[in-house]
Amino acid sequence: MAVISLMTDFGLKDGNVGVMKGVIWKIAPQAQISDLSHLISPQNIAEAALILYRSAPYFPDFSIHLVVVDPGVGTARRPMAARLGNQYYVGPDNGTITLLLELVEQQNLPTHFIHLNKPEYWLPNVSYVFHGRDIFAPVAARLAAGTPLEALGTPFDDPVRLALPQPERTAAGWRGQVIHVDHFGNIASNIRVEHLGEMLQHKERLTVRVRGAEIHGLVNTFGERTPGTLVALIGSTGNLLACLVNGNAQTRLGVQIGDAFEVVYE
Amino acid sequence: MAVISLMTDFGLKDGNVGVMKGVIWKIAPQAQISDLSHLISPQNIAEAALILYRSAPYFPDFSIHLVVVDPGVGTARRPMAARLGNQYYVGPDNGTITLLLELVEQQNLPTHFIHLNKPEYWLPNVSYVFHGRDIFAPVAARLAAGTPLEALGTPFDDPVRLALPQPERTAAGWRGQVIHVDHFGNIASNIRVEHLGEMLQHKERLTVRVRGAEIHGLVNTFGERTPGTLVALIGSTGNLLACLVNGNAQTRLGVQIGDAFEVVYE
Amino acid sequence: MAVISLMTDFGLKDGNVGVMKGVIWKIAPQAQISDLSHLISPQNIAEAALILYRSAPYFPDFSIHLVVVDPGVGTARRPMAARLGNQYYVGPDNGTITLLLELVEQQNLPTHFIHLNKPEYWLPNVSYVFHGRDIFAPVAARLAAGTPLEALGTPFDDPVRLALPQPERTAAGWRGQVIHVDHFGNIASNIRVEHLGEMLQHKERLTVRVRGAEIHGLVNTFGERTPGTLVALIGSTGNLLACLVNGNAQTRLGVQIGDAFEVVYE
Repeated sequence: MAVISLMTDFGLKDGNVGVMKGVIWKIAPQAQISDLSHLISPQNIAEAALILYRSAPYFPDFSIHLVVVDPGVGTARRPMAARLGNQYYVGPDNGTITLLLELVEQQNLPTHFIHLNKPEYWLPNVSYVFHGRDIFAPVAARLAAGTPLEALGTPFDDPVRLALPQPERTAAGWRGQVIHVDHFGNIASNIRVEHLGEMLQHKERLTVRVRGAEIHGLVNTFGERTPGTLVALIGSTGNLLACLVNGNAQTRLGVQIGDAFEVVYE
Repeated sequence: MAVISLMTDFGLKDGNVGVMKGVIWKIAPQAQISDLSHLISPQNIAEAALILYRSAPYFPDFSIHLVVVDPGVGTARRPMAARLGNQYYVGPDNGTITLLLELVEQQNLPTHFIHLNKPEYWLPNVSYVFHGRDIFAPVAARLAAGTPLEALGTPFDDPVRLALPQPERTAAGWRGQVIHVDHFGNIASNIRVEHLGEMLQHKERLTVRVRGAEIHGLVNTFGERTPGTLVALIGSTGNLLACLVNGNAQTRLGVQIGDAFEVVYE
Repeated sequence: MAVISLMTDFGLKDGNVGVMKGVIWKIAPQAQISDLSHLISPQNIAEAALILYRSAPYFPDFSIHLVVVDPGVGTARRPMAARLGNQYYVGPDNGTITLLLELVEQQNLPTHFIHLNKPEYWLPNVSYVFHGRDIFAPVAARLAAGTPLEALGTPFDDPVRLALPQPERTAAGWRGQVIHVDHFGNIASNIRVEHLGEMLQHKERLTVRVRGAEIHGLVNTFGERTPGTLVALIGSTGNLLACLVNGNAQTRLGVQIGDAFEVVYE
């Protein structure tokens, strides 16, 4: 029984997510469907890329990740299906796969990109503005029902990649950026365990600086400090975070996506 | 494996939607359940009617659409199950089916209305205020598990219909109303492709007027104009929309449901 | 096919709920998963306890209720699985089960508590801050796939219980507290049908007082009064509520969780 994950910027009130599930189950009645998020900020491809990257590896092999954050719907941007290691992606070729693709390439796993150009696998009537329902949901369902990836269109090898900000090495640490703020107000940077490496063996010697706040030492988890304390820690998918114990660090610090986020080793 | 869609005004925080799924799976363990929306504005039957109308046709044949927007719960309003063409409805007889019923009648498809009055198909204890859990979820699950519609109650033939506003023909076009604003702030009118007909062969000759704004020409999709531009286009289910490319038209224009929405052909 | 319910304070935008479903379906591909709520107020264990208590009894026997409201994640608090009558709980041992456990004990149903201390049933890498994904989701999936509860860890018999406020008998009725406000703004107290008992045979003799408002008599349902009227009634799971017909009582009265809520019998 294939698993499909679903991520969009459609919100939850208009029925557009539910209708995609109707389309999927018409073709693949047994598919399990997991909603990753439908609250991606409108048109924010980078946010979708981050969530796809950190979620997909936890899914069963050959799950199908259907992502529709698609400001270019109905224009020349390619509709696409891809194999990324042991996971499939279906959605627009607009950079959503950037981070997951990098991960898969680092692991030397196979990749395969297909331009979806065979309307016989789509709904009979394709609207200009809802390819999620009319193209991507039916294609994801075909994959789930056993149609081979290669049958769905024409191969290509130059998928769009986002130019995402990278942290820079400084004299005493790393200078990165705020890339995500979660539901709790935890502030995630693009500085990762891979950057910090051996520095993590002396967590007490690291100092995090973000929006004027200075946090000395890294903890392993929230409960090591009292409620209301700012802490820095490694999040569950390897990014360096600034958090407020039992509170909202984003509100406390007034942080925005893109703000500088620095760590210094002393 | 039957598909059930679920739409309510219950919101997502109180567990009331999840509990209905528990009730359904007790009776129909294999049912697939798609959440259409649980963010219908409280008691807004017209909004539920619109979303049901544009979503149901995309579902597998004989899917069951369980809709609970039910300000009259526990009063004399009839609990109801209905066949509407190749789809089922379960919920209060309060007009929720109005638009889908019109569509099905235009297509000369069969309709059948059942007053749910057989408590043996409900939960043993029926509360006064949560028939979604106690009557409608068990009845939808019975249908999913194979109980014939006719067994669930007594036939009737006068379901409640909402008197929804209709667009009017003007000298040079149509005058309608704003009937929905979606998550992106796109503004939907009740003027549809069926009204515009041959005018759509010269999209450049149409002008849309809403809340003081004037939009010349219709585009096919957002990406034909630069971000921040107001555009008019036909939405994915056939309604005439006013949108802001990569932005929120509702916020920009301060539009409300019920505002005038006009189109002129020159 | 086992049913798993899922409740967290994770919100819906970050992908963390969806990733737990990916983990579950890797181990138990056929599990049905019902989202109870992911909008529990951050770290609010009492709110999760209330929703679990009133929802679990409606689920199929031996459903698995996976609840992750876990401010103590990564500290010494016990990870736990439990049998509570004919339902299972998986989550932190932090009091989430308090109300459901009391109910099960009143019914003299069996209970069994297991300290989850066998990492062979978890994901291979356990983060410090996301045990929902790394410990609780895999354990719930093992239960769903047939692993016996006892195999998952070591029995214990002193689960954490919250000290929740209890209503007090007064000369002429009961004095309780506001314990929940739902999506509609309905105000729930901790005064229950069990407290009121025979007083409910003369609903017209009861007066509810909350935040300066006085509501004379109890109705059975909203539609007995005109829109905009304050009413008191017994909610669908037995708590005494104050509501505004077709409106929001919480906004009208400015009520907060913990406010006094009194009922007097005259």
